[in-house]
Amino acid sequence: MRSTTDPTLRSFVPVPPESPFPIQNLPYGVFRPEPGAQPRVGVAIGDWVLDLAVLEERGFFGGPELADRRVFGQATLNVFMALGPAAWHAAREQISRLLRHDVAVLRDDAALRDQALVAREAAEMLLPCAIGDYTDFYASREHAANVGRLFRGTDAALPPSYLHTPIGYHGRASSVVISGTDIRRPQGPSCGPNGSGPALGPTRELDFELEVGWFVGRGNELGRPIPIQRAPNQVFGFVLVNDWSARDLQQWEYQPLGPFLGKNFATTISPWVVPAPALEPFRCEGPVHDSELLPYLRTKGPQAYDLHLQVALQTPQMDTPHIITRTNLRHLYWSPVQLVAHHTVGGCNLRPGDLLATGTVSGPTPDSLGCLLELTRRGESPLGLPSGEQRTFLEDGDTIILTGWCEGPDYRLGFGECRGRIQPASP
Amino acid sequence: MRSTTDPTLRSFVPVPPESPFPIQNLPYGVFRPEPGAQPRVGVAIGDWVLDLAVLEERGFFGGPELADRRVFGQATLNVFMALGPAAWHAAREQISRLLRHDVAVLRDDAALRDQALVAREAAEMLLPCAIGDYTDFYASREHAANVGRLFRGTDAALPPSYLHTPIGYHGRASSVVISGTDIRRPQGPSCGPNGSGPALGPTRELDFELEVGWFVGRGNELGRPIPIQRAPNQVFGFVLVNDWSARDLQQWEYQPLGPFLGKNFATTISPWVVPAPALEPFRCEGPVHDSELLPYLRTKGPQAYDLHLQVALQTPQMDTPHIITRTNLRHLYWSPVQLVAHHTVGGCNLRPGDLLATGTVSGPTPDSLGCLLELTRRGESPLGLPSGEQRTFLEDGDTIILTGWCEGPDYRLGFGECRGRIQPASP
Repeated sequence: MRSTTDPTLRSFVPVPPESPFPIQNLPYGVFRPEPGAQPRVGVAIGDWVLDLAVLEERGFFGGPELADRRVFGQATLNVFMALGPAAWHAAREQISRLLRHDVAVLRDDAALRDQALVAREAAEMLLPCAIGDYTDFYASREHAANVGRLFRGTDAALPPSYLHTPIGYHGRASSVVISGTDIRRPQGPSCGPNGSGPALGPTRELDFELEVGWFVGRGNELGRPIPIQRAPNQVFGFVLVNDWSARDLQQWEYQPLGPFLGKNFATTISPWVVPAPALEPFRCEGPVHDSELLPYLRTKGPQAYDLHLQVALQTPQMDTPHIITRTNLRHLYWSPVQLVAHHTVGGCNLRPGDLLATGTVSGPTPDSLGCLLELTRRGESPLGLPSGEQRTFLEDGDTIILTGWCEGPDYRLGFGECRGRIQPASP
Repeated sequence: MRSTTDPTLRSFVPVPPESPFPIQNLPYGVFRPEPGAQPRVGVAIGDWVLDLAVLEERGFFGGPELADRRVFGQATLNVFMALGPAAWHAAREQISRLLRHDVAVLRDDAALRDQALVAREAAEMLLPCAIGDYTDFYASREHAANVGRLFRGTDAALPPSYLHTPIGYHGRASSVVISGTDIRRPQGPSCGPNGSGPALGPTRELDFELEVGWFVGRGNELGRPIPIQRAPNQVFGFVLVNDWSARDLQQWEYQPLGPFLGKNFATTISPWVVPAPALEPFRCEGPVHDSELLPYLRTKGPQAYDLHLQVALQTPQMDTPHIITRTNLRHLYWSPVQLVAHHTVGGCNLRPGDLLATGTVSGPTPDSLGCLLELTRRGESPLGLPSGEQRTFLEDGDTIILTGWCEGPDYRLGFGECRGRIQPASP
């Protein structure tokens, strides 16, 4: 059988050349085909969603890995995620086959096509799974150094442990929302004028963070670390993540237990989970590590991904979004498998559907930084916009749109959008 | 009707004088009456568990607040928690009534008693609910100052924000376990000898943390803070919490994003959730605040609880546990309602069953400190034990038992035990 990422594969479903969803991608999402309908699992293909619940009911997923399990007629992907790589592989092979231009089963069955293909525009996207825990890392060395300089000065920029072991924190799972959800500007305490005691008010330094996240598959038992060699089996698929941040709140509170109100008001994810195998052709070498790593963090072969990332900003005065930063996931100092191994080395258990994310992805140049804190050097260098406006941090009504994609030989494989618009603080 | 905490109330179920579970308490838990049985909700009374699923099936919870809802024949308390205070009140009134010595319904129905009362020894206790998110605070000023001195020196002991606003972090929900679960010593990176690069190994500084936690009731919508006046309605009930900590791992990693591997390997909670109304008679004044608080943190009336707390340690060489610290929740600088208000002031949403905890509760005296880090001044002053042994941090085979109780006029109202024994690190 041809590989599901074979660049010569084509689907009978038309896929516009600029679409992020060619047959080599096949990302999973949870959607309602129409308002009020039961949520179910689908796969994006071009401008369409393939309704897997319909195909499951018709018995198309009857292989031994998936037999007798209802995994797609579900409101979340958790059950499917928990089955592990053999089931994921079987399902992906079957979906790829059913969508191929040279396979007649679905292509020539007009009634089934009508039932199983839903216009993507009409689909309401929901969170892809129930997220038990959300962990965010600090895996971009450039980001860590830049933020360190701004918060603690040049001498203490990079934390002493940074080059030896990854740094991460537990985020807030309850406030992870799907792309398109409006984001209310949070209030919270921050330093008063002239360094006086705190004042409560809407954040004055509302920021985005450009990140990539991934969902855990089967997970591990408490007390049983996941060795790095087996970590790839735990990565179900990837999404874009915007870890919205309120910098003034964060600075007030972050010592010594880390960010809290500065982060927990909202995190946006893109709705389509790009399966790990779809990104395989885009593996590449990441940065060279400065010091020899502890054995539990050592990997063989390329672990980075050549994944283009960009952020666009649209203010209410602008007709179209304006790209404010472009970077690439390949700059990441710590790879996803290293982060899985680190997370579990002490025995912490991961569960199906847990979300892990990279932290802000910044590149080495001033135009490749992944948040406004860095791009504007905490407001010192405002961004000029085509509308003539300037921005230091986000203002009410601003929309932030993250996109990410890989460039294949004959196709572009992407994530779609991760979008959110800022609403004024509650009165 | 008499109050459910009326000290003159008695149950027809015999309650030994030293029992933590008199009729004034009525804590909720989830249990299996026998191995392999379906989990269900029960209430502890003396040495017995009242099986609420049995009573629910017989129609004893038919009031308008609970009608047509199956809340006790469930494997978790989440559904009941989500109903809110009116339903909690109705259920508690009914349970109190059914257990009174002067009410015949259950007392005189031998068949029903046989079915509904399970010996507590025979019951297998499970986690009381599915914990969506777990948040741990740093609400004891004494603890914060002591740890700060040990980690950062006297000058930087108390973080600058401490006296103005609470500090907290998002903990790991997946590794919260029920009392009695063995705790595997975690491994992780920590500072090498003479401050050199990190080494991976089992923690050498394994510690307990004596805490009190509470479960969220209905919760709030994202973007809608819970005003402090309404925070009491969100507190379903309380448990003891042991936030096991690996101090060497924690020190290596905690800057700037807070504890991660140093905490996420396990957190133990006691199985019986003491309803908030049961603690009402034990409200008392807490410490006076040093600075005027922001309005969102201001409360009226006493917000502390006169709740005795103690920790006992038993090594494999000891026949009985030895009490190593005694303190009281009344010393807490920030109260539970202040912590709920702070958590949500930026719009963060709480969900039914979320766990919030105080952080280590330390008192003002050297024998009232809530963790070994403080009790032994990070190993400088080992604890002497009756067996002739000494302890700086926990060793394999050691058991830690937290208990907590309030002293009523004619009864003692408690939490039972929160217990865990240390297993050697994985090979």
